[in-house]
Amino acid sequence: MNLEAIYHRPKLNWAYAYDHETIHLRLRAKKGDLTEVHAWTGDKYAWDTTVELVPMYVMSSDHQFDYWECEVKPPFRRLKYGFLLHKGSEKVWMTENEILKDLPLHPERLFEFPYINPIDVFTPPAWVKEAVFYQIFPERFANGNPSISSDQVEPWGGTPTRDNYFGGDLQGVIDHLDHLTELGVNAIYFTPVFAAQTNHKYDTQDYMKIDPQFGDADTMKELVQKCHDRGIRVLLDAVFNHAGATFAPFLDVQEKGDQSKFKDWFHIRKLPLQVEHGIPTYDTFAFEPHMPKLNTENPEVREYLLGVAEYWIKEIGIDGWRLDVANEVDHYFWREFRKVVKTANPDAFILGEIWNEASPWLEGDQFDAVMNYPLTNAITDFIVERISDASQYASAIGLQLSRYPRQASEVAFNLLDSHDTPRLLTLCEGNKDKFKLAEVLMFTYTGSPCIYYGDEFGMDGGADPDCRKCMVWDADQQDRDLFSFYQQLIRIRSELPALRTGTLHFLSAEEGSTKLVFHRQLDEETVLIFANNDNIIQTLEVNVEEKQWKDNFTGEKWIAKQGKLAVRLPAYGYAILTAIVQ
Amino acid sequence: MNLEAIYHRPKLNWAYAYDHETIHLRLRAKKGDLTEVHAWTGDKYAWDTTVELVPMYVMSSDHQFDYWECEVKPPFRRLKYGFLLHKGSEKVWMTENEILKDLPLHPERLFEFPYINPIDVFTPPAWVKEAVFYQIFPERFANGNPSISSDQVEPWGGTPTRDNYFGGDLQGVIDHLDHLTELGVNAIYFTPVFAAQTNHKYDTQDYMKIDPQFGDADTMKELVQKCHDRGIRVLLDAVFNHAGATFAPFLDVQEKGDQSKFKDWFHIRKLPLQVEHGIPTYDTFAFEPHMPKLNTENPEVREYLLGVAEYWIKEIGIDGWRLDVANEVDHYFWREFRKVVKTANPDAFILGEIWNEASPWLEGDQFDAVMNYPLTNAITDFIVERISDASQYASAIGLQLSRYPRQASEVAFNLLDSHDTPRLLTLCEGNKDKFKLAEVLMFTYTGSPCIYYGDEFGMDGGADPDCRKCMVWDADQQDRDLFSFYQQLIRIRSELPALRTGTLHFLSAEEGSTKLVFHRQLDEETVLIFANNDNIIQTLEVNVEEKQWKDNFTGEKWIAKQGKLAVRLPAYGYAILTAIVQ
Repeated sequence: MNLEAIYHRPKLNWAYAYDHETIHLRLRAKKGDLTEVHAWTGDKYAWDTTVELVPMYVMSSDHQFDYWECEVKPPFRRLKYGFLLHKGSEKVWMTENEILKDLPLHPERLFEFPYINPIDVFTPPAWVKEAVFYQIFPERFANGNPSISSDQVEPWGGTPTRDNYFGGDLQGVIDHLDHLTELGVNAIYFTPVFAAQTNHKYDTQDYMKIDPQFGDADTMKELVQKCHDRGIRVLLDAVFNHAGATFAPFLDVQEKGDQSKFKDWFHIRKLPLQVEHGIPTYDTFAFEPHMPKLNTENPEVREYLLGVAEYWIKEIGIDGWRLDVANEVDHYFWREFRKVVKTANPDAFILGEIWNEASPWLEGDQFDAVMNYPLTNAITDFIVERISDASQYASAIGLQLSRYPRQASEVAFNLLDSHDTPRLLTLCEGNKDKFKLAEVLMFTYTGSPCIYYGDEFGMDGGADPDCRKCMVWDADQQDRDLFSFYQQLIRIRSELPALRTGTLHFLSAEEGSTKLVFHRQLDEETVLIFANNDNIIQTLEVNVEEKQWKDNFTGEKWIAKQGKLAVRLPAYGYAILTAIVQ
Repeated sequence: MNLEAIYHRPKLNWAYAYDHETIHLRLRAKKGDLTEVHAWTGDKYAWDTTVELVPMYVMSSDHQFDYWECEVKPPFRRLKYGFLLHKGSEKVWMTENEILKDLPLHPERLFEFPYINPIDVFTPPAWVKEAVFYQIFPERFANGNPSISSDQVEPWGGTPTRDNYFGGDLQGVIDHLDHLTELGVNAIYFTPVFAAQTNHKYDTQDYMKIDPQFGDADTMKELVQKCHDRGIRVLLDAVFNHAGATFAPFLDVQEKGDQSKFKDWFHIRKLPLQVEHGIPTYDTFAFEPHMPKLNTENPEVREYLLGVAEYWIKEIGIDGWRLDVANEVDHYFWREFRKVVKTANPDAFILGEIWNEASPWLEGDQFDAVMNYPLTNAITDFIVERISDASQYASAIGLQLSRYPRQASEVAFNLLDSHDTPRLLTLCEGNKDKFKLAEVLMFTYTGSPCIYYGDEFGMDGGADPDCRKCMVWDADQQDRDLFSFYQQLIRIRSELPALRTGTLHFLSAEEGSTKLVFHRQLDEETVLIFANNDNIIQTLEVNVEEKQWKDNFTGEKWIAKQGKLAVRLPAYGYAILTAIVQ
């Protein structure tokens, strides 16, 4: 038995309450090493009458490890536990401090989940599990009110630069809600809409004011109302890590220096505020002088920003916040933020922008979810760049699932491109088949997928600013095939709950292979996803229990023979199959 | 290279800010497997100009693993990092998701410590590092005011039962402060002093009132003031997990049932409140009907208890709280508690009663320290029960040090016995040499040691209630040898800062051995601790750099020969040596 590979520690993703009654326990072991694992559980104060060996199952695997998991419902909400590990006839007991060949002498030295306190249970809003997001970069979506456009506005469809304008605004979004409804999405994530100096608005001037080129609070309220009427939720972008250089408190410090009552609103290393050898004398986002970092530890700043967070929820009705550069802001602030936001609307969604592993923010006290860039990387490595094989893809997914409590994975914000990356179609060098295959993998993963505006019409574009082109409203330039592909994907995802919250296991993901098959399972529903990540026709074969299967895109029937289902797929082809129960 | 043994994850004890400028990184590897480890660090936004390989060192080891550590001071408070691991000529790079033979293709996929936000930095009060605690069980320490004693009070020195009384009170403590000063302690931890029905007072009736058998708020205020005059801090016991059966809100629910406005103050499964087949119909501490668990999620309860926490600090001047059954109360409550307590007094100490590994409470947002029972177990297993050898002792210590950020270890609350355990002398079956050796190990460990009242006079006693005998004030019955032993230990610890916050490394701790040598190092100060855990005379030998050494107990000189220092120790003997610099 590989004892060095064994890992467990209290709480976090290893022992957490899934709901008010249920604890999930997880244990890491070397891949393929253990034949059987049991959690050895009981009530701390009634051990002898409650002790139970609960079987564990492999919930996910990466190339090094298996992650074993079980569910326990302790009668008095308290759980004391260890583990009993088998490798064939070899067996060991694991306590908090030791791995022992014999039943431990000191059962009092086991692990503990001391008590399920409901307030600590990580509970993201239920609606997010059902959401399909649509990301809008407002300056480039649609110009619905030319009277408020910048003087420098350029004709719609021109080449985007770092600082030009095309006049997109909120009215433009209101005007095109039919498009979103037709597509089938039920949530919008807007990049910033508040008054700012740039076209991307990440340099906020006034957090309490819609940028006048986009509209005003009334327009936003109308937009939110009209979205809600269609069952569409609205998420705004909270840029709280830093403000813009024209933010009044920053201007005040620039003007008054040490005498400014706002000097503690920022992280100033030296006055005056200036740039020396390329480095601002104050902390900023990256080294951007026009994005001074806010001192969110200052109670005045905190109160101000929490007021902002509350206002747009309570007064304007938005359904949550996406948090820009969320990992550079203090945890203390985010805990307060959660309280304010959830008090204003318990169903509000808190989504952090974190590109890395985000477990420190996903314990229930801060965010509901993060932007799932690790999934983006896994899919692009596999499908787009083809630098990973099926086995590596499965490993990346297994690792990702192991890192977070299940409820966090269920609301992961999945995306393949955004205003911060090249467009997926460009990454795929225009290969629509690869593009679709990547989208299929995203839509069949746990969590809520997000479509970057225009992807549904085949828009392309390299890195910023090229990925921020004007939305294509000219029907002749719209790729209707892609549009109906997305419609189908959304429909299939909506019809099959297993795709949203089912377990995920790989049936075929070999080293060096371009053939991938996995299944999603929820209660009685089994969905099989087949992906041929190659430029040749391939047949993918797996063992199945049901005989007849239906392709949810084409309606085509596939018949298993002698327990084997062989699915022939074109280059970069895919299939989402469900069993036809006789 | 054993790749399955490698472990690191963001934040927690693996990557934390030690102060406002310094990040500690840790990496776990199989014991003895790696020959060299570097952290590969830089600023996320200026990687190419800041990238640096920082050497790591083994900070501690257990029987399975080495824990490598380094300090980094990132110029802009942001740190992106990976690891470069060597085993001889074999070398691999570790990123957040992969272990690679070659320099990673995607340096953007490294780990991140996004930004040192001072408010998130775990900062326990500095005074705790210098503290030696003395635990008082008030009913049994001294009767200073017989006029307030219970009618049922028994003669001082009688046999303690679960429910008898001897009249100990706060005036008794005031009267004996000279004793504490003579002993040399500088902090008292009191078990509960609030109005309650039992002699231990863990069943609180009124959190705002000193138990009338102990005195009143004025007596407590006087006690605190007189302690402060002597440089002694005072910690009270906050029993917030549960109240007593005579707590007014609980009585109200008993009386009015569903109509009580306090029914949500508890965790009631079924009304009326009663015990069915040994199980109360409401949650309690363990299954004790007279200790109903408080619903600390209820904002009314939270406000009430936070008011209690604040009152005794602000109005009475206490220096902190020990938190009873701390792990069964919600994290949300403890985070609010920390805010209130630290606002009332930034130097107040928050000490949780947690018997298990306590990392979920030691991240800077909740407790400053926990009662270090894992150390208790390690010392008693080794010295008292002799079920572990020197190697197992070193392993337990190495594991313990690896689990928490350094600042948590520096204020660990170390104890060998308490009102909840048999007395150490009884565990040692009266063997004073073993007793002293155990105390030497505790006093030379990182953190603050605690002496249970009476241990300094050789008091014995088995499990509760026997460990709660009356303090021995009859000079003839006091063991003055033990008293002066403690005086010396306290003096030595106070004279040698390395014993408090120095690094700890084992020089001799072999499998099957009863000989233990370790050193503590801080700046230029080196302290060597020798322990002969056997009933025979043994000579313990280690390699040293300095020639002459002084025994800090006896003043005796030891001379190293050819770089070897051999220390001959009697059965269960010990020595704390410091180099004599010529």
